[in-house]
Amino acid sequence: MEKKELLYEGKAKKVYRTDDPDLYIVDYKDDATAFDGLKKGSISGKGVVNNRMSNLMCQMLQKAGVPTHFVEELSDRETLVKRVKIVPLEVIVRNVAAGSFSKRFGVEEGTVLKCPTLEFCLKDDDLHDPMINGYHILALDLATQNELDVISAYTFQINKIMKEFFLSIGIELVDFKLEFGKLDDGTIILADEISPDTCRLWDSKTHEKLDKDRFRRDLGGVEEAYLEVMKRIGLN
Amino acid sequence: MEKKELLYEGKAKKVYRTDDPDLYIVDYKDDATAFDGLKKGSISGKGVVNNRMSNLMCQMLQKAGVPTHFVEELSDRETLVKRVKIVPLEVIVRNVAAGSFSKRFGVEEGTVLKCPTLEFCLKDDDLHDPMINGYHILALDLATQNELDVISAYTFQINKIMKEFFLSIGIELVDFKLEFGKLDDGTIILADEISPDTCRLWDSKTHEKLDKDRFRRDLGGVEEAYLEVMKRIGLN
Repeated sequence: MEKKELLYEGKAKKVYRTDDPDLYIVDYKDDATAFDGLKKGSISGKGVVNNRMSNLMCQMLQKAGVPTHFVEELSDRETLVKRVKIVPLEVIVRNVAAGSFSKRFGVEEGTVLKCPTLEFCLKDDDLHDPMINGYHILALDLATQNELDVISAYTFQINKIMKEFFLSIGIELVDFKLEFGKLDDGTIILADEISPDTCRLWDSKTHEKLDKDRFRRDLGGVEEAYLEVMKRIGLN
Repeated sequence: MEKKELLYEGKAKKVYRTDDPDLYIVDYKDDATAFDGLKKGSISGKGVVNNRMSNLMCQMLQKAGVPTHFVEELSDRETLVKRVKIVPLEVIVRNVAAGSFSKRFGVEEGTVLKCPTLEFCLKDDDLHDPMINGYHILALDLATQNELDVISAYTFQINKIMKEFFLSIGIELVDFKLEFGKLDDGTIILADEISPDTCRLWDSKTHEKLDKDRFRRDLGGVEEAYLEVMKRIGLN
């Protein structure tokens, strides 16, 4: 399968059309941004980690019954995925307070939450991806109640699977962001990367950050953290 | 029943202890603030409108089966209410897009929503009352699932009753804010004013604003708008 027309270039990846109208190729870049695009940089080798890790996670989730966009890994940075219409929501799961959640609600980073939380943000760069709730989503016709129910159920299932998996390799899954898409027949599938760009991953014992917060907060050792996650996952 | 110790002085009212430990007296002021306290002023006669209107609304809601803190109107500005422990949430209902909702989600003010929405904000001045969702509330132990269910059910019931009532006097109920409290036995009751300070009320035909937005946005005719609402409600 060959790359055709470039359809979209985002902060961390490019998406290309292919000969098959139902399949796209995602090409992961090393570029990194943070704080609503205000901070820009590059993390050498990140594209490879994010591509390979995402594909492994998607295959793990598919085996557990969560449908994803993953079709085939084409190279270290390129993957064939199913074409979807993205549901314009970021779905954020939190097991431990951190980042914007800690600031917003005055809860110390590292506080273990009584139960996992799910929150939706409207995907809209101009509006800075504001938090939105289920009632708003229905009132603005952004998704149906059934779609929200399916997305919520998959999200909690994904959290359970990922939390256990990461724990088994000495990593605490603090929080993560997902996006879902719709196939032509309306089927909801996971259509996003799962990587240190989109997850907060802390060493279970030392609580050392092994994710994009090292870049966001200028903690150093950014490339090393991404490689450490890849190593622990068993990808080398 | 006489006022004893001043327990609390807020932006728009004072609360006093009484001889009965289970009853407080609320005293409505003419002071007005907006934009997180940045704008300050006074609306002559507002305390009277808000007190009398709130009491009428509470009595209407109680007749329909929604328990409220209202006990007895003592004077034009003073009301005897039940002592509650306030649930630290602002509950906002929207029928039509306006104000912060319009800005946040880029929806033109006046857009009728496909269905009424409910949103929670954490009552915390230092944090500027951030929007919060049900999962966050449970995770931070701010209320129980049962309390949230009861609050949500009452809130939609109140919206239905108030929407119909206001429509019958030529007013569109755009949105409003409620707060709930708990009695010692855990019973959830409505424990807030319902007034042009806490509701957006538009003339059904002209869409003229008959609420605190006249103060917030320097539209003039602020006192007249409050009096017009009181007149239409049948209080003179």
